[in-house]
Amino acid sequence: MRIHVVNPNATSAMTAQIGIAAHKVARPGTVIELVTGSGTPVSIEGYTDEALVVPGLLAAIRSAEQHGAEAHVIACFDDPGIDAAREVARAPVIGICQAAMHAATTLSTRFSVVTTLPRSVPIIEDLADRYGMGRRCRRVRAIDMPVLAIEADPDCSYELIASEILAARDEDGAEAVVLGCAGMAELCERLTAETGILVIDGVTAAITMAEALVATGYRTSKIGAYALPRPKPGGLIGEAA
Amino acid sequence: MRIHVVNPNATSAMTAQIGIAAHKVARPGTVIELVTGSGTPVSIEGYTDEALVVPGLLAAIRSAEQHGAEAHVIACFDDPGIDAAREVARAPVIGICQAAMHAATTLSTRFSVVTTLPRSVPIIEDLADRYGMGRRCRRVRAIDMPVLAIEADPDCSYELIASEILAARDEDGAEAVVLGCAGMAELCERLTAETGILVIDGVTAAITMAEALVATGYRTSKIGAYALPRPKPGGLIGEAA
Amino acid sequence: MRIHVVNPNATSAMTAQIGIAAHKVARPGTVIELVTGSGTPVSIEGYTDEALVVPGLLAAIRSAEQHGAEAHVIACFDDPGIDAAREVARAPVIGICQAAMHAATTLSTRFSVVTTLPRSVPIIEDLADRYGMGRRCRRVRAIDMPVLAIEADPDCSYELIASEILAARDEDGAEAVVLGCAGMAELCERLTAETGILVIDGVTAAITMAEALVATGYRTSKIGAYALPRPKPGGLIGEAA
Amino acid sequence: MRIHVVNPNATSAMTAQIGIAAHKVARPGTVIELVTGSGTPVSIEGYTDEALVVPGLLAAIRSAEQHGAEAHVIACFDDPGIDAAREVARAPVIGICQAAMHAATTLSTRFSVVTTLPRSVPIIEDLADRYGMGRRCRRVRAIDMPVLAIEADPDCSYELIASEILAARDEDGAEAVVLGCAGMAELCERLTAETGILVIDGVTAAITMAEALVATGYRTSKIGAYALPRPKPGGLIGEAA
Amino acid sequence: MRIHVVNPNATSAMTAQIGIAAHKVARPGTVIELVTGSGTPVSIEGYTDEALVVPGLLAAIRSAEQHGAEAHVIACFDDPGIDAAREVARAPVIGICQAAMHAATTLSTRFSVVTTLPRSVPIIEDLADRYGMGRRCRRVRAIDMPVLAIEADPDCSYELIASEILAARDEDGAEAVVLGCAGMAELCERLTAETGILVIDGVTAAITMAEALVATGYRTSKIGAYALPRPKPGGLIGEAA
Amino acid sequence: MRIHVVNPNATSAMTAQIGIAAHKVARPGTVIELVTGSGTPVSIEGYTDEALVVPGLLAAIRSAEQHGAEAHVIACFDDPGIDAAREVARAPVIGICQAAMHAATTLSTRFSVVTTLPRSVPIIEDLADRYGMGRRCRRVRAIDMPVLAIEADPDCSYELIASEILAARDEDGAEAVVLGCAGMAELCERLTAETGILVIDGVTAAITMAEALVATGYRTSKIGAYALPRPKPGGLIGEAA
Repeated sequence: MRIHVVNPNATSAMTAQIGIAAHKVARPGTVIELVTGSGTPVSIEGYTDEALVVPGLLAAIRSAEQHGAEAHVIACFDDPGIDAAREVARAPVIGICQAAMHAATTLSTRFSVVTTLPRSVPIIEDLADRYGMGRRCRRVRAIDMPVLAIEADPDCSYELIASEILAARDEDGAEAVVLGCAGMAELCERLTAETGILVIDGVTAAITMAEALVATGYRTSKIGAYALPRPKPGGLIGEAA
Repeated sequence: MRIHVVNPNATSAMTAQIGIAAHKVARPGTVIELVTGSGTPVSIEGYTDEALVVPGLLAAIRSAEQHGAEAHVIACFDDPGIDAAREVARAPVIGICQAAMHAATTLSTRFSVVTTLPRSVPIIEDLADRYGMGRRCRRVRAIDMPVLAIEADPDCSYELIASEILAARDEDGAEAVVLGCAGMAELCERLTAETGILVIDGVTAAITMAEALVATGYRTSKIGAYALPRPKPGGLIGEAA
Repeated sequence: MRIHVVNPNATSAMTAQIGIAAHKVARPGTVIELVTGSGTPVSIEGYTDEALVVPGLLAAIRSAEQHGAEAHVIACFDDPGIDAAREVARAPVIGICQAAMHAATTLSTRFSVVTTLPRSVPIIEDLADRYGMGRRCRRVRAIDMPVLAIEADPDCSYELIASEILAARDEDGAEAVVLGCAGMAELCERLTAETGILVIDGVTAAITMAEALVATGYRTSKIGAYALPRPKPGGLIGEAA
Repeated sequence: MRIHVVNPNATSAMTAQIGIAAHKVARPGTVIELVTGSGTPVSIEGYTDEALVVPGLLAAIRSAEQHGAEAHVIACFDDPGIDAAREVARAPVIGICQAAMHAATTLSTRFSVVTTLPRSVPIIEDLADRYGMGRRCRRVRAIDMPVLAIEADPDCSYELIASEILAARDEDGAEAVVLGCAGMAELCERLTAETGILVIDGVTAAITMAEALVATGYRTSKIGAYALPRPKPGGLIGEAA
Repeated sequence: MRIHVVNPNATSAMTAQIGIAAHKVARPGTVIELVTGSGTPVSIEGYTDEALVVPGLLAAIRSAEQHGAEAHVIACFDDPGIDAAREVARAPVIGICQAAMHAATTLSTRFSVVTTLPRSVPIIEDLADRYGMGRRCRRVRAIDMPVLAIEADPDCSYELIASEILAARDEDGAEAVVLGCAGMAELCERLTAETGILVIDGVTAAITMAEALVATGYRTSKIGAYALPRPKPGGLIGEAA
Repeated sequence: MRIHVVNPNATSAMTAQIGIAAHKVARPGTVIELVTGSGTPVSIEGYTDEALVVPGLLAAIRSAEQHGAEAHVIACFDDPGIDAAREVARAPVIGICQAAMHAATTLSTRFSVVTTLPRSVPIIEDLADRYGMGRRCRRVRAIDMPVLAIEADPDCSYELIASEILAARDEDGAEAVVLGCAGMAELCERLTAETGILVIDGVTAAITMAEALVATGYRTSKIGAYALPRPKPGGLIGEAA
């Protein structure tokens, strides 16, 4: 099974981390094709960063579809371009936020999210609402560190995240916590072990959900909003001439 | 991997069908442990039937947990007893309705459901709302046939379901259709092939989602609402003395 | 007028308390038929306890219907089995949570709930949402005492409840407080008197609402989801052979 | 028990009808004090009519409070001035729309409303949402007859209402129907008998709910939004000098 | 362009302030017709005050329509009588709460409101929900000062409001703050300057939105709920004989 | 006053039409700066087209900000990139969908939308929900014509739109209709005149709302989600080196 995993930002160290998380849970026969954004922002911290990664993401998805990808994972917690990606793809497209929230609502009745910057709080709240999880999401918390600082100072970021996880349990009544940034994936197991709380990372949730959907044979509906884009003069980015 | 699949009603022919659907999508190494309700109604058609199957379902889950089940699937579209089952289990518990709706909202923007009896329409609408999928669920349609009649008269039921699927596309603007009864699982592939619409069966969605969650290692949160039941004098059904 | 009041748990001391609260508000001519669960958990503290009381509850309702009950009250704040009970009954079925929330939204614009254990918080929040009261319910608070401890240590529980009621007024902006456990009924008047806040007990709300519905002559709709259960081979628990 | 029932419009024939419906369900000892609007529109058909009846309604409530009323019923389906009335009163204030919807959601899972003019449809939909009943209210239907025409041509209006009730069952999946105008109260029993559907009239629902609340002893919260109006220079309409 | 601005309460000092705020933003050619309530409460602090100003407000709107007003602004933050006013008017009717919330959701993703008395908190929350802004409104805060005290003690009220604005940013995550009382309009610029937060006053938002709608030529729909009131014997307040 | 109006697609004929609509309502002193997308799809018909126009749109906004634009209008009914644009801009950013829906909910209680292709229906429904207008939006209707066909065959498209407008009034109970495509702007007046229904075009609503916000002096909040993008190595598209 070939699963195409896009880290839409330009930081390959983050792609490597995503790859480690992905391989930890993938089935033996699954091939993880990792792609890093090219010419895109080094991290995604707001609407503009999101917008700037989508054209390249769509090109990557078109290309991967032509090369046999059976599912696509967008490995950024804002799920940037997820609807456009589903329009372009015939294979299932999984966002790590949506997958993590699906897992969280299967394993708990209430969860909180811990993310990086406060500016991302309304973005993630809006995603939760859009996915129908708003009522189950107690609160989105931010550690107030930029995305790339997590890797740069893992000890400090670990402490901040752990502290928010405990606060989520004690103040929010959260029964599980979703990590709100792909760059936090490598901390997940230690956080669970040390806090005693179910901590969910979107990368592992998305990879396994991608495998699950491939196994069912269900593919993205091509009726309605996710029908292939209407052809336009001049073609689209990433489209064969 | 051991997945415990409960058909909570007492009809073993239906369990057999569920088993066929499950094995079609399960990984090579997955063991599907099929259980049929005992002393329960022969089909689940309303709140009372649901209520009457839950004590036995909980006993089955406790027993399977003790025998190494790594995930549980409740194979009835009403997801009866799902919260109690999650309270009792440490392994993930998947309902076929919730799994099918998760798949539907990953693969389409709007879906409809086709179920058996009109009396189940508000029940499934309420489940969709509870799972946060109400806004994405265009309509719940009923073919007005009892559950067991589907197997008894497969040609007639096939025609009725196919007709509602086409109506869902044309009248509701549905981009995908979820089959609202475990007994419809065997019709799924033919319905997709002949209607040209993405038709989703909950059994296959739930089995693969169970495998996915087992692979992640995430288990049901034991903090809050899904904490193990508080011990009571006399013990609970299915609990070791 | 005959009103059938079921305490679905097995603790007859609690039934006695419910009976006192019921008789305090019932009309002179009303006969309160009190029933205690048999073979059920001694208190209802979570989804499993709820599930285990429902079959017996349904049997009690069928039996009471045959003996002339004109309304049924389920005297547990989780309103366990309320939909199944309405399916089985022709007479109105009142849950003490729903009745208390109806009263609270008639007498105030915002209310909070004070219940026993934290694990019940999401359960009651979900009930409030299901009854359409979620937007009016400021917060569900827990005193973190098991149900039976309230009677065992009434002074301590009184202090904890009173303290949460004052916090509901001061921190939540609640204008009224609903007591979230049938076992708190006997404390209601004193709590109102000493806190100066409108405190609503579900038992009294439900008994009087049952009398009200009997007086109107309206009975449970037998069209759609609350139609009588479809007959099944072997019959249902509590059904005459 | 003294219950103050206000027909806020100026049509005393309608008050008489309301009185008949009220007496049919009231307890033996209940005194129904009927009041008709004075100097108000002859019927309430829209926001302006509503607005014009409220000052008189508030004066009536203040006066009735001083004369021992233990509950107030606003007998117009738009529940005009209900929040202001609750601010002014210490006794419970019941609106016939809210009471009817409470009854409908106790006795069915889905209901529709049949009202007079199409212009009232969004008004009633908004009330249903405000009362948290929007999700349970399938549809608000209008017979397109003015309020006073119902009494003027009872046969015609009966046929139109009956026809909408049957359509509510067949097209909306309604399990019960609420009559959306106080002037329809006298048709209620015949409509139920002839359509075979549970038809709920707000006047009977409200009178009995008023009796119920009086029996509990709960009164309107005077903390927060329903606190008594702040005194103003010049006083308020209906206030003693 | 003639814009009719009603201060529905009887305090002409407040009308003068509203006029200053209005003139600060109005186009050169715009004529602001200021009207003060007559015989109405001196300030609007709850549902009853609201109800008592509406008949006069409707009369003012009818009169202004006849004298060429091209838009109407209701300059009280509760938007009292807004639906009735739209029913009576052909020109657009703007409420300062609705206009301020429209502006706030155009300029930020989350806002809070700072109002006068705690009793107004649920009123404004309900308005936000009704306008579809509830999800974007983080919190309604009250300084616990009566409306007229703001003008009487501007320094004290300034400090209290500024303090709540900073709390809205720091505790609520508000990105903008709406002033929840027409009497706060004159403080708006200083609050923005000194807190560094976007502070929105409803009067300026409403005046400019009124000008905008007049420029488009769109007028209040006279189909459905806002159709002109049906004529009634005796006529309506403010209607020509 | 300088208002920057972006037609994000590459069809200059459509920009010209938008310009005509804009000038019809703009104040005498307002300068409308019209920009057409460059290298973008010729029309926006789905998520992918939306995604492909956003980087250019952001560059245009940055450039216009530097050249003194006091407000920005995104003249495509999907409001593509609206959040990113607000992040990048200090001036207000108005989307024609949001502006049209604000106008519609000020002038009516219920509206419908008429758009081009069925694939856009869920997109516009989701926008309505996001803007809090979902409850007021009766239905999104599609004439099933591509965007550019409207201009190519104006008579046919006029008839189809007019027919849907009448259906919106008669079947949906819509009191106003919003035109769901910038390319329909020129038909708006004739549609209103001939159908007798309030028809609202987003371009005129947005231009006048932009003027209104400029007049107030309120600008996009730079706290939280709309704070300027964090600087990234390599800079962003459209950013000065």
